[in-house]
Amino acid sequence: MRLLGGRWRLLLVSYLLDGPKRFSDLRRDMPGISQRMLTLDLRALEEAGFVQRTVYPEVPVRVEYDLTADGDRLRPVVDVMREFGLWLKARDALVAHAESESA
Amino acid sequence: MRLLGGRWRLLLVSYLLDGPKRFSDLRRDMPGISQRMLTLDLRALEEAGFVQRTVYPEVPVRVEYDLTADGDRLRPVVDVMREFGLWLKARDALVAHAESESA
Repeated sequence: MRLLGGRWRLLLVSYLLDGPKRFSDLRRDMPGISQRMLTLDLRALEEAGFVQRTVYPEVPVRVEYDLTADGDRLRPVVDVMREFGLWLKARDALVAHAESESA
Repeated sequence: MRLLGGRWRLLLVSYLLDGPKRFSDLRRDMPGISQRMLTLDLRALEEAGFVQRTVYPEVPVRVEYDLTADGDRLRPVVDVMREFGLWLKARDALVAHAESESA
C-alpha cells in the first residue's frame, strides 16, 4: 500500500471523487501541498491507473484530472478513512475540552 | 490523517488487531521495518492513544504492545485497506500476465 502512503494522496483522491478537477482546483482544495508534490502525486496515481489526465485542445489549453474506474474503487477506502478522521477529531476535541476544564 | 501516513503504521495496527504482541513478534511480522522505525511508530501510536505498552515485571522483563479500545476503531480502516490491497495485487498480476502473453 505504499501507493497510498503519501501524506496527500488519499486526500487528493477524495477531492477527485467529486468529479474531474483542474490542477488549479486541486491547489485550491489543498493549499498545504506544494505544486511540485501535487504534480508528483498526480503522476504516481496516473501511472498506477487511478487517475486519467485529459488535455482539451482549447485556447488556453485545459487539462483535467479525473478518476478512472479503478480509481473509483478507492471510494470505500476514502469513506472509511474520512469517518475515522472525523471520529478522531471529535475525540481529540473532547480530550482538549476536558483538559481545559480541569486546568 | 498524518498519524496513519507512515508507510508501516496501518500494517503495524493490522498485526496488533490479532492480539497483543512483543517487539520481537512485530519485527518478525514485518522484516522490512528497521528497529528504530518500529520503535518510533509504536511510540507515535502510543502517544495517540491507539496502542498500550505493558511491562510485565518478570525475569527477563516482558513488554507487550496491544491496541486500546480507540485503536480497535482502526479495524474497519485496516479491513478496507486490506481488501483494496488484495484487489490491487490481483489487478496487477492480471496486467503482468496479459503483458507476458502479448510479448
